[in-house]
Amino acid sequence: MIKPLFDNVVLKKDKEIKKTDSGILLSTKEEESKYATVVAVSNGTLSDGSKIDIPFKVGDKVFYKGYSHTDIKDNGQDYIIVSLKDIICVIE
Amino acid sequence: MIKPLFDNVVLKKDKEIKKTDSGILLSTKEEESKYATVVAVSNGTLSDGSKIDIPFKVGDKVFYKGYSHTDIKDNGQDYIIVSLKDIICVIE
Amino acid sequence: MIKPLFDNVVLKKDKEIKKTDSGILLSTKEEESKYATVVAVSNGTLSDGSKIDIPFKVGDKVFYKGYSHTDIKDNGQDYIIVSLKDIICVIE
Amino acid sequence: MIKPLFDNVVLKKDKEIKKTDSGILLSTKEEESKYATVVAVSNGTLSDGSKIDIPFKVGDKVFYKGYSHTDIKDNGQDYIIVSLKDIICVIE
Amino acid sequence: MIKPLFDNVVLKKDKEIKKTDSGILLSTKEEESKYATVVAVSNGTLSDGSKIDIPFKVGDKVFYKGYSHTDIKDNGQDYIIVSLKDIICVIE
Amino acid sequence: MIKPLFDNVVLKKDKEIKKTDSGILLSTKEEESKYATVVAVSNGTLSDGSKIDIPFKVGDKVFYKGYSHTDIKDNGQDYIIVSLKDIICVIE
Amino acid sequence: MIKPLFDNVVLKKDKEIKKTDSGILLSTKEEESKYATVVAVSNGTLSDGSKIDIPFKVGDKVFYKGYSHTDIKDNGQDYIIVSLKDIICVIE
Repeated sequence: MIKPLFDNVVLKKDKEIKKTDSGILLSTKEEESKYATVVAVSNGTLSDGSKIDIPFKVGDKVFYKGYSHTDIKDNGQDYIIVSLKDIICVIE
Repeated sequence: MIKPLFDNVVLKKDKEIKKTDSGILLSTKEEESKYATVVAVSNGTLSDGSKIDIPFKVGDKVFYKGYSHTDIKDNGQDYIIVSLKDIICVIE
Repeated sequence: MIKPLFDNVVLKKDKEIKKTDSGILLSTKEEESKYATVVAVSNGTLSDGSKIDIPFKVGDKVFYKGYSHTDIKDNGQDYIIVSLKDIICVIE
Repeated sequence: MIKPLFDNVVLKKDKEIKKTDSGILLSTKEEESKYATVVAVSNGTLSDGSKIDIPFKVGDKVFYKGYSHTDIKDNGQDYIIVSLKDIICVIE
Repeated sequence: MIKPLFDNVVLKKDKEIKKTDSGILLSTKEEESKYATVVAVSNGTLSDGSKIDIPFKVGDKVFYKGYSHTDIKDNGQDYIIVSLKDIICVIE
Repeated sequence: MIKPLFDNVVLKKDKEIKKTDSGILLSTKEEESKYATVVAVSNGTLSDGSKIDIPFKVGDKVFYKGYSHTDIKDNGQDYIIVSLKDIICVIE
Repeated sequence: MIKPLFDNVVLKKDKEIKKTDSGILLSTKEEESKYATVVAVSNGTLSDGSKIDIPFKVGDKVFYKGYSHTDIKDNGQDYIIVSLKDIICVIE
């Protein structure tokens, strides 16, 4: 199990084009897609000891800024670890 | 539905030239236009837990600094997500 | 009407050479001139929620640092939006 | 004995490919691997006098951001000293 | 009248070589001279609302760091506007 | 006597290869060695007036980040002055 | 008289090689020497209004980081003005 620390969020990139209930059509170019599903979040304690709330939960669909992340690959599934502040919005 | 987090604001770019009630003529070059309509705002909680007020509401016309934003395209409509601090003014 | 937010100040560039009551002769090169008239100020609430006083009023003549601003053009009149901290002095 | 100070964490790089209990297959390229075992942590007092909690213990398996670290070699074993904030997640 | 705001200080560059009462001989190269006379100071309120004391008065002779300033020219006299923190010392 | 101020620590570089009691073999390349002995520490008052504890004492063996230091040479012995935050760990 | 402001310290470079009572031999290359005598200090009030103690007095011998300073020359004597934080240590 991956337990992210501090402000890190574990995401799973979705391989197929998605159309949300509200009709948002996501980009067909997977490698540029910044759409992902939340896989794991930290307990909200930062490295300097301060506390934050995580404004989404495991399973939520999110858009993220992809310019600074860490990759973990497992059985062909890409996991991405990004900072909380790089999660831009939740898609419902 | 797009639910922006933290200091993110969702905007819709207006495709046509606008002349406001107060007579402000906006640029005819759409790709350089920084005029947009507010589509969605966050609940005002930042990623470090602090709270802010959002000084405009959905439907307001705003000017924004366009050098750092995230694009989402849906049915030919460009949505732009920018930081609150990059909203310069409201046009009434 | 342009309603600036946060620390933004709306200025109108003066197209003609000015000589102030105290005898200050301003540059004849308009494109380098950093002399302008205050057109609109915000309500003094910054994007992080803190409050400030605006130490000048609409109609005041000011010098500003011009290296970072946003332009709005209306009926041939240049408007400039700059940050409060880039207003250097008031000319009386 | 290596006693790290402030926000420094001593790690031991694992030379063999690992598969965790939850099935995470780690990269086969050792030189790029960012998977390591925690060897020693500080007492949680930073250089400016503030206190923090260390959210893992000696023996834990972690992923770290490897772009800024100090190497110590002893009997063919690589030790790496990284900052606490560069530990991304614990693998259980 | 020039009324500087925030941490801005208005200085007048002295065109001739000066020898102070205490015998300090200033550079003969005027364009490199960083010696000037204080012409105007602000009321000590910064752009974020905090208050400071100005540790010199109009007429004082000062040395300043000249790498970041704004020029105003009036009837052949150079005025320079610098930040308070760039005033290094008072020469008496 | 060298009395370091603020966050400065005076170190003496050790010219010979060392093997610590716990078996840590240090690099044979002296010019790259970052192993040194603490010679003097400050009284723990920083230049902004705040107070800190120094978590080691004169005579302790330490590793340091060597990319920013000041050299003093005396009778063939290299002394190095580094910032407290650049002391990574104590070797016992 | 030179009255330094804020965190500025006035130093006098010593032109001859010095050997301190404790035997520290200073560099023979004067232009690289960072050894100097304190000539004047400020009253300990910074430009943002906060107060500090100056941990040395006029006449003390100090080492300083020389990469950012202002020169004043008077009758062939070099004076150097540096920031308090760039004074590394006092030599007694």
